[in-house]
Amino acid sequence: ITNLWTWLQQIAFEAWNFGRSDPRKIISSAKMGLALVLISLIILFKDLSQNSVWAIMTVVVVFEFSVGATLSRGYNRGLGTFSAGAIALVMAELSILTGNLEEVFIIISILITAFCVNFVKMYPPMKQYEYGFRVFLLTYCCIMVSGETIKEFFDTAVSRLLLIALGAAVCLAVTIFVYPIWAGDDLHNLVVKNFMNVATSLEGCVNGYLQCVEYDRVPSKILTYEAYDDPAYSSYRSAVNSTNQEDTLVCFAIWEPPHGRYRMFKYPWKNYVKVSDALRHCAFMVMALHGSMLSEIQAPAERRLAFNSELQRVGTEGAKVLRELGNKVNKMEKLSPGDILSKVHEAAEELQKKVDKKSYLLVNSAKWEIGRRAKVLSDPEDTDEDLDDKTKFLAKSLSETVLDLRSVKLSKSWNVHNTNTSAPTSLLEDDLSENMFKKQISWPSRFSLNSNMALSEESSTYESASALSLATFFSLLMELVARLQNLVDSFKELSEEANFNEPSIDPLVPEEIGGI
Amino acid sequence: ITNLWTWLQQIAFEAWNFGRSDPRKIISSAKMGLALVLISLIILFKDLSQNSVWAIMTVVVVFEFSVGATLSRGYNRGLGTFSAGAIALVMAELSILTGNLEEVFIIISILITAFCVNFVKMYPPMKQYEYGFRVFLLTYCCIMVSGETIKEFFDTAVSRLLLIALGAAVCLAVTIFVYPIWAGDDLHNLVVKNFMNVATSLEGCVNGYLQCVEYDRVPSKILTYEAYDDPAYSSYRSAVNSTNQEDTLVCFAIWEPPHGRYRMFKYPWKNYVKVSDALRHCAFMVMALHGSMLSEIQAPAERRLAFNSELQRVGTEGAKVLRELGNKVNKMEKLSPGDILSKVHEAAEELQKKVDKKSYLLVNSAKWEIGRRAKVLSDPEDTDEDLDDKTKFLAKSLSETVLDLRSVKLSKSWNVHNTNTSAPTSLLEDDLSENMFKKQISWPSRFSLNSNMALSEESSTYESASALSLATFFSLLMELVARLQNLVDSFKELSEEANFNEPSIDPLVPEEIGGI
Repeated sequence: ITNLWTWLQQIAFEAWNFGRSDPRKIISSAKMGLALVLISLIILFKDLSQNSVWAIMTVVVVFEFSVGATLSRGYNRGLGTFSAGAIALVMAELSILTGNLEEVFIIISILITAFCVNFVKMYPPMKQYEYGFRVFLLTYCCIMVSGETIKEFFDTAVSRLLLIALGAAVCLAVTIFVYPIWAGDDLHNLVVKNFMNVATSLEGCVNGYLQCVEYDRVPSKILTYEAYDDPAYSSYRSAVNSTNQEDTLVCFAIWEPPHGRYRMFKYPWKNYVKVSDALRHCAFMVMALHGSMLSEIQAPAERRLAFNSELQRVGTEGAKVLRELGNKVNKMEKLSPGDILSKVHEAAEELQKKVDKKSYLLVNSAKWEIGRRAKVLSDPEDTDEDLDDKTKFLAKSLSETVLDLRSVKLSKSWNVHNTNTSAPTSLLEDDLSENMFKKQISWPSRFSLNSNMALSEESSTYESASALSLATFFSLLMELVARLQNLVDSFKELSEEANFNEPSIDPLVPEEIGGI
Repeated sequence: ITNLWTWLQQIAFEAWNFGRSDPRKIISSAKMGLALVLISLIILFKDLSQNSVWAIMTVVVVFEFSVGATLSRGYNRGLGTFSAGAIALVMAELSILTGNLEEVFIIISILITAFCVNFVKMYPPMKQYEYGFRVFLLTYCCIMVSGETIKEFFDTAVSRLLLIALGAAVCLAVTIFVYPIWAGDDLHNLVVKNFMNVATSLEGCVNGYLQCVEYDRVPSKILTYEAYDDPAYSSYRSAVNSTNQEDTLVCFAIWEPPHGRYRMFKYPWKNYVKVSDALRHCAFMVMALHGSMLSEIQAPAERRLAFNSELQRVGTEGAKVLRELGNKVNKMEKLSPGDILSKVHEAAEELQKKVDKKSYLLVNSAKWEIGRRAKVLSDPEDTDEDLDDKTKFLAKSLSETVLDLRSVKLSKSWNVHNTNTSAPTSLLEDDLSENMFKKQISWPSRFSLNSNMALSEESSTYESASALSLATFFSLLMELVARLQNLVDSFKELSEEANFNEPSIDPLVPEEIGGI
């Protein structure tokens, strides 16, 4: 009994949390209860219990979370019932004409109708009317089988239609007039949330990269793209994954009458999805940036920090643009005059110039067949402070490389040339059984043991790979900046189509001054 | 009338094509017809037309495309009806005890039940039982409202339950015994198809990159991640997008009894999804590779071709591994002994060494503060053939740069420093109105017009960016290779859990010999 009690407590707690997370769910449930009570009262007091099932069924089946979904369900049900009724009426008439072949005729007509309806139902563009087709088939079969003559048919059909209409009316009245929940609002908020999420992810990735956040063990949930509680990851994941939700919401939103802030017939809901798609195109780049953070071959910290301020600036400016656009969508304002992208482009250009000057940090010049290090270093024209910089790094590639490599994680499979793989293999197997994390095997232990020629060659191979990974991070970031243009364009299209307000006061100006 | 006729022809043609693309849809429709005819025959000959609606409704509502989906629907319907019946019976008894408050009691119980059921229904883990909850609510309300006493209740309840059972039995018999369509098969094939798709995309990207396929106008459908007919794009897109389909299929597959090749209770269908998730993790890298093909800043062709054979080999070997794994899943075989990844790792190492030696191709050394080009070139120790190579490229960076830059497409926004932007702006607007393609504005026209200092500096900035994009392509490819390990691990897990067969003959051996 104590077990049962704690179990009940747990459930109540869970339900409470779930309800608090989105109070509209509680409201929606209460509305469903209200609709059912209303229809029950009507049935009880009007004594309609004979065919009451139709009214109740309509309420139960048509009632959905948002106004748009309920309207689309109700439309499907109404049209399905009505057209099936009309066609069945004609067919029933015809079946009487066939005389004693009546039953054969009925069976064949059911077979053909069922086949056609089911076939059309599976045609992808008809997907949204799936429910209507089911209702059609149900009504058609019921009428045909009950073998009603026209007289009977009209009586029952009318009473059924009335009951269904009654149920639908109760449903619609409750959804629209009692605390309406609009799918359009949801879509609007989802798109805004996606903007903020991608901005958070971008900042998280750039900062994480500069702070050299290392995943000692890459969580296997990330490796299989499941939900995982890492802000940089979960934010872009939710933006990338919202496709289906958006598609569903847009299907419902187009059913909704003008309401609230969307005072316009044929509101361009589809443009919201377009903006979100363009945002997703940017989010894929954030995903790639995050991928290069997860990568097994990593650039050493000093090299990353050489570009610290420039990388940081591009990340911050990019996130600022995304947030600004998200706010504009939220406030339904057009873009302020002036190029919203100018700052981030400036920052990107700064970064590009810096990279250009210091591109020796991105490759391993030790391996070039010409112009070897030693020569370069003894060059008499080297005078400026950058020389120290370079000397430091190049010297490091001889002396400190061993140390740098400690941070380079290599998966087991890379070490096919090494013989003593027994220890790491068992580690790996331990991990597979644990199944929570996938551990990458670091190689310093073996590195210090056998330092033969092949190995040191391999290590310098990975050293240069590690530097190149920095180059990757740059160009992914640059590509992200380039993709922002596309996003801004689709936002402009939306703001035109949806008649967004002109911006009243430019909220960026004070912020910029504060920033500088 | 001719219009109508051509319209009908079009529809028939479309339907024919749609049917041919997946004949199982035709079969499924015919099965639906068969089930409805069977239930109609039973009703007509047993004269059950009184409550026939329940049997027909059950068939219409429970019948689904695959066996698993039908079973899960039937289970939901059965459980929902039965439990609602039992609870309603108790409540109806209680309501009689309340005497003249009976109706108040009924209304309150409906309100509370509707609220609770609707609330629980929205709890995400309960999503798959959504239909069951609806049926529960429907049955409960119908029984409560009809105000039946125990005696009546039992009579109608039993006849209804029998009719529902009859409908469900007909449905199940038809789905299982007449050309069964298994969701498990679909899942299996989907995963195999994903493997092949990612392999195709990988090859397509690497080959496209080497053949310098340029998107003069990046199709705006790609920019918004919509379906677009480009093999390299559509293949990985379908693999990345199949998440939802897989989730749905796995929900149905777990309902299916052991059948065909899956002779095992509790077949590990979830591991199929895991493998597919790991594959998706690789597909994201292919996506990033494709992204760098779409990128506005591109490496010149000669530099790409310098790594032609190595890049090609990594791409081919990677695709081979993916196809091999796909075939293993398809044939349900375990991996052959030996490391399936050894070849692709070798190829990756080759590429890495080559990159290491020629990393000067990846950066713009002209901007280094120390060790300037001229010095490097006059180095007396330069002897081997790589020298020519390098000389060529470095010389090019002075003379031919202008030419190379012609292939560098820059978006309008990059050119904020240039004054004569009127012409390209109008071009852009033309395009927005056309709305099919988004054209990137190339800049040679202006480049030849005003060649002031700022511009030439900018051009060399983009020159080095263009070379870095090659480095990006490398490291993304390397990261892809590293991620294959994870994929192989999850395949191994699947092959253990699902008891795949030992490989009989190694199909790789002859192919390898042929390949060499």
